[in-house]
Amino acid sequence: MFENKGRTEIEQLGEFGLIEHLTKHFEIKNSSSVKGIGDDAAVLNFENKKTLISTDLLLEGIHFDLAYTPLKHLGYKAVQVNLSDIYAMNGTATQITVSIGISSKFPLEAVEELYQGISIACEKYGVDLVGGDTSSSKQGLVISVTSIGFAEEDKICYRNGAQEGDLLCVSGDLGGAYIGLQLLEREKGIFLENPNIQPDLEGKDYIVERQLKPEARKDIVEALELMKIKPTSMIDVSDGLASEILHLCKQSNKGCSLYEDKIPIDPMTYDTARDFGLDPTVCALNGGEDYELLFTVSQNDFEIIKNNPDISIIGHITEPAAGCHLISKSQKVHELKAQGWNAFKKSV
Amino acid sequence: MFENKGRTEIEQLGEFGLIEHLTKHFEIKNSSSVKGIGDDAAVLNFENKKTLISTDLLLEGIHFDLAYTPLKHLGYKAVQVNLSDIYAMNGTATQITVSIGISSKFPLEAVEELYQGISIACEKYGVDLVGGDTSSSKQGLVISVTSIGFAEEDKICYRNGAQEGDLLCVSGDLGGAYIGLQLLEREKGIFLENPNIQPDLEGKDYIVERQLKPEARKDIVEALELMKIKPTSMIDVSDGLASEILHLCKQSNKGCSLYEDKIPIDPMTYDTARDFGLDPTVCALNGGEDYELLFTVSQNDFEIIKNNPDISIIGHITEPAAGCHLISKSQKVHELKAQGWNAFKKSV
Repeated sequence: MFENKGRTEIEQLGEFGLIEHLTKHFEIKNSSSVKGIGDDAAVLNFENKKTLISTDLLLEGIHFDLAYTPLKHLGYKAVQVNLSDIYAMNGTATQITVSIGISSKFPLEAVEELYQGISIACEKYGVDLVGGDTSSSKQGLVISVTSIGFAEEDKICYRNGAQEGDLLCVSGDLGGAYIGLQLLEREKGIFLENPNIQPDLEGKDYIVERQLKPEARKDIVEALELMKIKPTSMIDVSDGLASEILHLCKQSNKGCSLYEDKIPIDPMTYDTARDFGLDPTVCALNGGEDYELLFTVSQNDFEIIKNNPDISIIGHITEPAAGCHLISKSQKVHELKAQGWNAFKKSV
Repeated sequence: MFENKGRTEIEQLGEFGLIEHLTKHFEIKNSSSVKGIGDDAAVLNFENKKTLISTDLLLEGIHFDLAYTPLKHLGYKAVQVNLSDIYAMNGTATQITVSIGISSKFPLEAVEELYQGISIACEKYGVDLVGGDTSSSKQGLVISVTSIGFAEEDKICYRNGAQEGDLLCVSGDLGGAYIGLQLLEREKGIFLENPNIQPDLEGKDYIVERQLKPEARKDIVEALELMKIKPTSMIDVSDGLASEILHLCKQSNKGCSLYEDKIPIDPMTYDTARDFGLDPTVCALNGGEDYELLFTVSQNDFEIIKNNPDISIIGHITEPAAGCHLISKSQKVHELKAQGWNAFKKSV
């Protein structure tokens, strides 16, 4: 896809030249970033706050398909996926490191696009790129991002704090990223069969963006702070709602009741799921990659939280012996099971 | 290589099962590790000290060759390579995260060996495994390690603090890892031509270990502390002595004189280099992967540092206009140039 543009081979720059070239436009914005790129390690200053660290590895052919993923979006998404973990601790994300492995099929211009996406994400979310590693790869594109942030000790939300009677809440809407992926996969299949047919994604921007360009919910962490609500437990929705609810309940040693009719699903997600012959609820429960925040709050916070249009109350926490259940629209009670997104089974 | 042993397919465990299986024997040893594996992010407490972060990506076929690299050694080395960066800041390494991508050719038993090596390194160096990510890979083995540590602000050694007149020092000896690699590559070539010939590494343990199982120089950081010496600048030797000296001089805006006859080279490295028709000095200058510490100290520290048998004084820092020079054994002056280890050119 870069054949027709100017093509600069990466070998011409070498490792240090490449890092310098890719990162020279990145500015340090946070006072906690004492020293960024250019030494053996980054130096960060969180004073007496706690340091938060999370890391993710994204591999071509497993986590992304370059047939329909623009590199700029991919860079943006790689950062979002990671920041989401810091927000899920109720923390402030302040730094990332990015390591990439690049096969020789990529010219410099391709890597620049990837870093443009990383740069836009850093800019928008106020995080500094403070380190990383670049290497050639025999194995397609490899991206490893580590995100770093901080939180005051009494603000940190773990997965294990849910209490009986707590309200189960989720931000945004669910299932869109999964349906967006189905759409992209279908169009890829059609294109491979007949390269003259152009992809038909018209009017499907929202769900395609949910897949290609997710947004970590920094705004929800800020909204909770403004509402003076500290969730009793929190996790981000990367593997599907069911899997995440089961994580919270298992680690908190609690049960839960989840109401199908309360699960937020965007109309476009709903309709497109139906077009594919899929149950929209199943897409929300098992689809994954939504990067919304799932959390529990005390019932005392109900009056405050119910007015936030971006947060849905989808159930409540019960005693452990009650187990985890989904109450369907027809009032049937099903045991909640996770299929989740399994990087060891899926193959894009 | 795992055909004859018990072979457990990784899919049977799934992603969460795999992480739990691999990490359940890892213990948290540092009080700074508030929360390790099992939440969205690790939570660390460095009180008023500065946080140090460094990350490296290791890719099969680029950074390691499984034809002669035992997985246990590889896990150990992946940790050492990273810790070395924290020590190069004069810091204390306390945590790591490890992400791996594994192709389906690896059974669980192989990944267990890799984690055994990681575990031994964590144990020996007193660091906690606090997070990571596992995924399948279409493309061989991918390992990404992030190391985290801390230092008091006034103890941190950057690359840019070298002063005119400072002594240029290096720990241990150099070139061994590179010569070890040449030996392993030669034996691999012989084996591929005739699989009945077993590798002949007899008596070469030291240089083979330098390549396969390097040790980060935590002991040197501790020795400097005991000697009450704070280097004016420091870097670890991962890309070859010449490249690292040039980094220090460039970032400190200084020149230097390096004396060939002072460069520490182990006799086995020296002799084996000669057997290969290589100049041992060139191996030390450009070989890389030694993971020794290169640092500068004030001349006032000479009387203390000269007695440490594990530290060699190899030159001194000069004014920037003088440039960087190597003074050969025959007293000829050469401009110091780095070829270094370039992950974009090398192919194992």
